[in-house]
Amino acid sequence: MKPAALFRQRVSIEQVEEGRDLAPKFDRDGLIPAVTTDFTSGELLMHGYMNDEALARTIETGQAHYYSRSRQALWHKGATSGLVQTVRELLIDDDQDCVWLRVEVGGNGASCHVGYRSCFYRKLPVGEAALSTPLELEFTETEKVFDPEVVYPGVPNPTKL
Amino acid sequence: MKPAALFRQRVSIEQVEEGRDLAPKFDRDGLIPAVTTDFTSGELLMHGYMNDEALARTIETGQAHYYSRSRQALWHKGATSGLVQTVRELLIDDDQDCVWLRVEVGGNGASCHVGYRSCFYRKLPVGEAALSTPLELEFTETEKVFDPEVVYPGVPNPTKL
Repeated sequence: MKPAALFRQRVSIEQVEEGRDLAPKFDRDGLIPAVTTDFTSGELLMHGYMNDEALARTIETGQAHYYSRSRQALWHKGATSGLVQTVRELLIDDDQDCVWLRVEVGGNGASCHVGYRSCFYRKLPVGEAALSTPLELEFTETEKVFDPEVVYPGVPNPTKL
Repeated sequence: MKPAALFRQRVSIEQVEEGRDLAPKFDRDGLIPAVTTDFTSGELLMHGYMNDEALARTIETGQAHYYSRSRQALWHKGATSGLVQTVRELLIDDDQDCVWLRVEVGGNGASCHVGYRSCFYRKLPVGEAALSTPLELEFTETEKVFDPEVVYPGVPNPTKL
């Protein structure tokens, strides 16, 4: 189905905030941020982006699709790694410029290209604890779930400086 | 403390992904997305943005600060509504272009300017259920926690079409 058939025009704040129309707002690059959490644990797994096609494909197939900004292409999550994300619940926020995917992850359950379960494997000190310099990140996951060089052989690292 | 004193230069992918340096990546508008979940329930409360000052203030004070794109100003969440978010845990993702705040919300516990507890109070049908047109959103919260006209008298609605 074409995205245009799923999405409505944004005509009023009342419609966008209080209505039942799906009228997502894509930014100047045509993207909407997508927050992905584990359906069972609630853990934040990743933060990605979708274009209209990725959102439409996610709705239709029930599997998470994103837009890869580094590859500039539609990205069916798990197509390379096997770690498909099955969408158990898909929500949208008040002004419809962000979506929330509650997913079950296939395979070994990892979602991070570095090999950790979640992309959020380091925490920052906050408040009193942060005032001792230099500030250092602390790892919350200490073991990788997979070796990226085995799972993504020859694939460039998507991280940009 | 000045943001420059907290943040390091990004010098290598190894440093950014596997190191202990806090070296966040701000986008071309100087912003980094922030995902905020309830520390106890894990529920996604909101998706916002921080500039370097908002991130530095959050780290230093332990209370969530964002950058309001609609008001183009630093935004101490709860300053108007009393619904301050106390940061229990602050994490950063693999390539350091997104932060995750696990918070406890003060007052009545709401985080959404429309009056609901979470900004994500509507869900989309997915897969088979989505193929019946027209697609309609379903409300997951049916009662507002507060009346925005009482809490934010005379404040313009931040939602943009």
